Amino acid sequence: MSMRSFPLSKVYGLLETGPVVMLTTAQRDGTTNVMTMSWHTMLDFEPPLIGCVVSNRDYTFDILRKTKECVIAIPTVALAAKVVKVGNISGRTGIDKFEKFGLTPMPAARVKAPLIKECYANLECKVVDTAMVNKYNLFVLEVQKAWIDPARKHPRTIHHMGNGVFMVAGRTIKLPSKMK
Amino acid sequence: MSMRSFPLSKVYGLLETGPVVMLTTAQRDGTTNVMTMSWHTMLDFEPPLIGCVVSNRDYTFDILRKTKECVIAIPTVALAAKVVKVGNISGRTGIDKFEKFGLTPMPAARVKAPLIKECYANLECKVVDTAMVNKYNLFVLEVQKAWIDPARKHPRTIHHMGNGVFMVAGRTIKLPSKMK
Repeated sequence: MSMRSFPLSKVYGLLETGPVVMLTTAQRDGTTNVMTMSWHTMLDFEPPLIGCVVSNRDYTFDILRKTKECVIAIPTVALAAKVVKVGNISGRTGIDKFEKFGLTPMPAARVKAPLIKECYANLECKVVDTAMVNKYNLFVLEVQKAWIDPARKHPRTIHHMGNGVFMVAGRTIKLPSKMK
Repeated sequence: MSMRSFPLSKVYGLLETGPVVMLTTAQRDGTTNVMTMSWHTMLDFEPPLIGCVVSNRDYTFDILRKTKECVIAIPTVALAAKVVKVGNISGRTGIDKFEKFGLTPMPAARVKAPLIKECYANLECKVVDTAMVNKYNLFVLEVQKAWIDPARKHPRTIHHMGNGVFMVAGRTIKLPSKMK
């Protein structure tokens, strides 16, 4: 895919439909990891703020708290099998999930965590608030830079319904909403 | 629709796909209101905790802070036009949106806020944490009782993509995920 810079003011539209995303991190020694995540919400439009839950049982939890950086990569249904495999195995095993599952890490502009080439959108994020981490595992992220594949006009995102059942994004409709 | 009690342990599956929902409230004098909301995430499985953003510009904001109760009602695409209308007008106008838009309020079991008969699922919620309200307009809700229409096997939920464009839930796929 080719990636084009995407306006921060439009990022909310990528996430508020509730897609399953992958979250990448990089440690100081350059080791990268990727996990799968479904619990996130927009918190503000611009700069885009995201609240996301990363369980304290996840390998990513400590890395995110320490490095305060990540990339949120949004896959489509074409990647669904890989997304599930990424979610089934912990980075604690030492396995390079990018290599094992054929995901291509790419350098980001503002953070050390990698973009994922196969994803239709990538959001470079800094952790800006950890006050809710102890109680809810809730990290507040600010999107600093966003990328999108301009060729994908109707990305078929996937949406977890529990226990491995995923809804695939269907048709779109336009209604006279005043909502931003 | 008929409504059947729905196990709290399964509530996360209703919300983590990111549907547009309606949020109802009731004031002490019995006045009810309903708003449209897209920014929410699960925070915990059981009891089900939800984080949701209600703007301090919304009429519901003060009511929610005072009454600490609400119902989250999940509509399908059949209600999309009404959902948009609910979102386009403020309760501050004094209009009874239930009556105006043909939504039927029904008594809830644990809260004074009404269920919406036409929605395929309804979640009775108490506000359990307001610590993040001042900074992020983020309310933490605990679902106390859940209802679902057992007849709807494949509810076509709607998912906001920004500016009145909505994705309609498409097909479902089952993958060998270890995710709950």
